[in-house]
Amino acid sequence: MTDTQDATTAKSGDAKAPSRRSLIGWGGAGLALGAAAAGGGVAMSRVGNSIDGAAPAAADTGAAVAFHGASQAGIATPVQDRLHFAAFDVQTDDRAEFVQMLKDWTAAARRMTAGKAVGDGAYGGLAEAPPDDTGEALGLKPSRLTLTIGFGPSLFEKFGLKGQRPAALVDLPQFPGDNLDKTRTGGDLCIQACADDPQVAVHAIRNLARIGFGTVNIRWSQLGFGKTSSTTPGAQTPRNLMGFKDGTRNIAGTETDRLKKFVWVGEGDGPDWMTGGSYLVARRIRMHIETWDRTSLQEQEDVFGRDKGEGAPVGKAKEHDKPFLKAMKPDAHVRLAHPDSNGGVTILRRGYSFTDGTDGLGRLDAGLFFLAYQRDIRKGFLPLQRKLSAHDALNEYIQHVGSAVFAVPPGVRDKDDWWGSTLFSKEA
Amino acid sequence: MTDTQDATTAKSGDAKAPSRRSLIGWGGAGLALGAAAAGGGVAMSRVGNSIDGAAPAAADTGAAVAFHGASQAGIATPVQDRLHFAAFDVQTDDRAEFVQMLKDWTAAARRMTAGKAVGDGAYGGLAEAPPDDTGEALGLKPSRLTLTIGFGPSLFEKFGLKGQRPAALVDLPQFPGDNLDKTRTGGDLCIQACADDPQVAVHAIRNLARIGFGTVNIRWSQLGFGKTSSTTPGAQTPRNLMGFKDGTRNIAGTETDRLKKFVWVGEGDGPDWMTGGSYLVARRIRMHIETWDRTSLQEQEDVFGRDKGEGAPVGKAKEHDKPFLKAMKPDAHVRLAHPDSNGGVTILRRGYSFTDGTDGLGRLDAGLFFLAYQRDIRKGFLPLQRKLSAHDALNEYIQHVGSAVFAVPPGVRDKDDWWGSTLFSKEA
Repeated sequence: MTDTQDATTAKSGDAKAPSRRSLIGWGGAGLALGAAAAGGGVAMSRVGNSIDGAAPAAADTGAAVAFHGASQAGIATPVQDRLHFAAFDVQTDDRAEFVQMLKDWTAAARRMTAGKAVGDGAYGGLAEAPPDDTGEALGLKPSRLTLTIGFGPSLFEKFGLKGQRPAALVDLPQFPGDNLDKTRTGGDLCIQACADDPQVAVHAIRNLARIGFGTVNIRWSQLGFGKTSSTTPGAQTPRNLMGFKDGTRNIAGTETDRLKKFVWVGEGDGPDWMTGGSYLVARRIRMHIETWDRTSLQEQEDVFGRDKGEGAPVGKAKEHDKPFLKAMKPDAHVRLAHPDSNGGVTILRRGYSFTDGTDGLGRLDAGLFFLAYQRDIRKGFLPLQRKLSAHDALNEYIQHVGSAVFAVPPGVRDKDDWWGSTLFSKEA
Repeated sequence: MTDTQDATTAKSGDAKAPSRRSLIGWGGAGLALGAAAAGGGVAMSRVGNSIDGAAPAAADTGAAVAFHGASQAGIATPVQDRLHFAAFDVQTDDRAEFVQMLKDWTAAARRMTAGKAVGDGAYGGLAEAPPDDTGEALGLKPSRLTLTIGFGPSLFEKFGLKGQRPAALVDLPQFPGDNLDKTRTGGDLCIQACADDPQVAVHAIRNLARIGFGTVNIRWSQLGFGKTSSTTPGAQTPRNLMGFKDGTRNIAGTETDRLKKFVWVGEGDGPDWMTGGSYLVARRIRMHIETWDRTSLQEQEDVFGRDKGEGAPVGKAKEHDKPFLKAMKPDAHVRLAHPDSNGGVTILRRGYSFTDGTDGLGRLDAGLFFLAYQRDIRKGFLPLQRKLSAHDALNEYIQHVGSAVFAVPPGVRDKDDWWGSTLFSKEA
C-alpha cells in the first residue's frame, strides 16, 4: 500500500484509525496508514467524487476522504462541519514557479487529507531547518479534510492564459443592494478547506500559505463555524443564523443525475481543461442580526415561506414536504429561489455560518458565507441572484459584502497528477 | 423533575439524550429532559463545580453540564472544544434595571446550558411577537455548554459598588512588549461561553446580548476554534498554533486541593461576596505565525524547552515527565513559567486558538486567546507575566494585543438564585 492510497477511508471509532500522530515522526510513516486502512478501513468507491460515481452518504467525522478522483473532493462530499476558505493573489510573473507551487501544494494536500503531516521528515528532519509541517494538527484525526482549488477570473490575465478563460466563468454584475468590500472580494485563486475539526482546516490553509510564500499571498480568508447545508439525502438541514433551515432540497452527493446536470462541467461544455470541474460562487452575506431578532415570528416565517420550528413550507407539516409555492407570499425567499420558479435552475450549496466579532457599533459581524457550485454560472447563480436581489423579502435583513467566482478544475487523477494540470500541462 | 434539574448529565451517544429539538415547541418541554435524564442519564455530583467536590473527568461532548453549584461551571469543568467570549459595557445608570437583566440572563443561561431554548413559549408563542429564542441551536445537543460571568474593574465605578471591588482584582500594568488595542481591551462584564459545538456557544452569547439590549452592549468578542489546554488529568495537552503543547501541568478539574489553593477564592480572602469565585485574566496574544514558521526546529524547541513531536521537556522522553529545568536555556518558556521557578505560582489555564482572517499585510491574524483563572491576580498572572514579559524567548514571536481582568463571582446555588446575587442582593 502506498503513500497515495486513495480508495480507502478509516472509521473514526476504530482503535486502529490513523491519527496524525501515528503518521509522522521517526519512521514508519507510510506503513501506519496502510496498516490501519487494511485493518479497519471501509471500502469507498475510487470514483467517489467523479462524474459517474456516487459520493459516500455516511459522514464519519474522523475519517479520511479520498483526494484522487475525476472531480475534486469538497463539492459532492457530504458537507463537513467547519470551513476555512482562503483567496490568494499571485505575486510572481514566472509561470514555472507558479506551476511548481501547484505541484508542491498538491503533494501537501495529498498528505494532509490523508491525515499526515506535510513533508516526509516531520520532526525527524534537520534541526537546523524549519520543520516541514507547522505541527498544530499532530495527533488529530484526518477529520474528513477536503481541499478544493479554484482559479479566479484575474488569474487568466496572467501566464498567457487569456484564451483559456471559460465563458461560464463570468464576472458578476453589481446586484441591487450589494455593498462589496474590496478586501473581501475577488482573488486569483482560492482554496476551500472543509473538515469536521476546525484546527485541521486552519492547519491546511496555513501550511499551503507557507508553501506558497513569495509566490502567492492571502488576499482574504473566512472561517465558517457551522455548516448551513447538507448534501446527504434525507438529512435534516442545518439552521442558519436566522434560525431557519434553507436550501432544503439541496443536491445530494449521491444524486448522480442531478450532479451531472447541474454541477459537473461536461464534455463539450468547454473548455476541455474544465471537464469534470465546476464553478464556484462565494458570497459573504452579512445578516442584520439585531434587526432580525426583533422581528415577529410571523414576519420571519413570511420572509422565508417556512415555519421556524420544523422548517416545513407554508401549509405543510414536515421539512421535506413538497412546497406549495402559491401559498407563500410573492416575495417569500423559498418561493423566489425554488427551481420551479426559475425554470428548473438548481445549484449545489455548501454554505457556512460565520461570526467575526463585532463591528464598530457593537453589532455582531455575523451571517452566511454562501458557497455554491454549478455547471455554468450564467445558468446558475447569476439568473437566480438577479431575481432574488430585486424581489426577495429577505433583502431587508441581509447585505452581500464580499464576492468571488472561481473555475474549479477537475480532480487530481493519481499520485503523479497535480492541481491545474489540465490547464498548465502543455508547457509545464 | 423540574426545570432546574441540575444533578444530571445525559450521554450524547444515547438515543434518549435530549436534543434542543425535543425540548422546545408545542408542549411537554420540561418533561422531555426529565424522561431522557431518568432513562439515560449519568449521575454527576451536585457539587461538580464546587469548592469541595471534584469536577467530572469524562468529556462526553453532547451532554449537559450542571449550571448550579457553589462555584460557576466553565472553570474546573473539563475544557470544551470551542469558545465564544464577549465583553460587555453597561449602558444604564439604573441599578434595578441592571439587576433585572442579571436575573433574566440567569434564567436564560439555566435553560440554554440544559439544552433548552430561551423562554417557555419557543415557537408556540405569539406570532405577533419576536420569538424568545433566535433558533439556530434548535436540534443541537447541550454540547457541554457552560456560561461563566465576570465583573470588570470598571463595573465597580457604577451602581454604588466602589467599596465592593476586591483588592485581588488589580489593574494590570503595561508590560514590556504589550501593544494593546483599546477595542479589544477591558469591559464592564464578560460572558465566557464554552461548548463542544461552536454554534451552541455563539447562540448563547447572541441570545444574552439580545436580552441585554439597551442595558448592555458588546464591547468586543472573541471566537476560539481550538482549545489549547486540558483540565482532565493525564490527558494529552492540545497543541497551540505554534504546534507545541504548553501548560502540560495544568490544574485538573479533579484536583480539589490545588483548586482550593490556587483557583477558588476562600473565606477570609475577601470580600465575602467573592467566596467560591475566582479571578479571570484574558489576553489576546497574536502570534507572528509567518516568522515562527520560518524558524528552525532547534530554535523552536529551545524557545519552548520541549521537543515538538512529543512535547517532552528537554532531555526527557514523554510529555508528562518531570522537567529538569536547568537543562533548558535560561530564557526557555517552560523554564520561566514553571511553578518551581516562581515560588509555586500556578494558574488554571483555559486558552483557545483563534484565527480572525488576515491583516492588511496578508499575514494571518492568529494566535492564542489566553484565559487563566486564579485565586488572586496579585499572586498569579501578575508576577508570572512580569517575569515572562521581561525574559521569555517566546516574546520575539508573540505580541499581547488585548487584555481584560474580571472578578468571577461564585456559582448560582439553585433555581431562585441569580448571577451576582452575592454582590447585588442587599438592595435588589
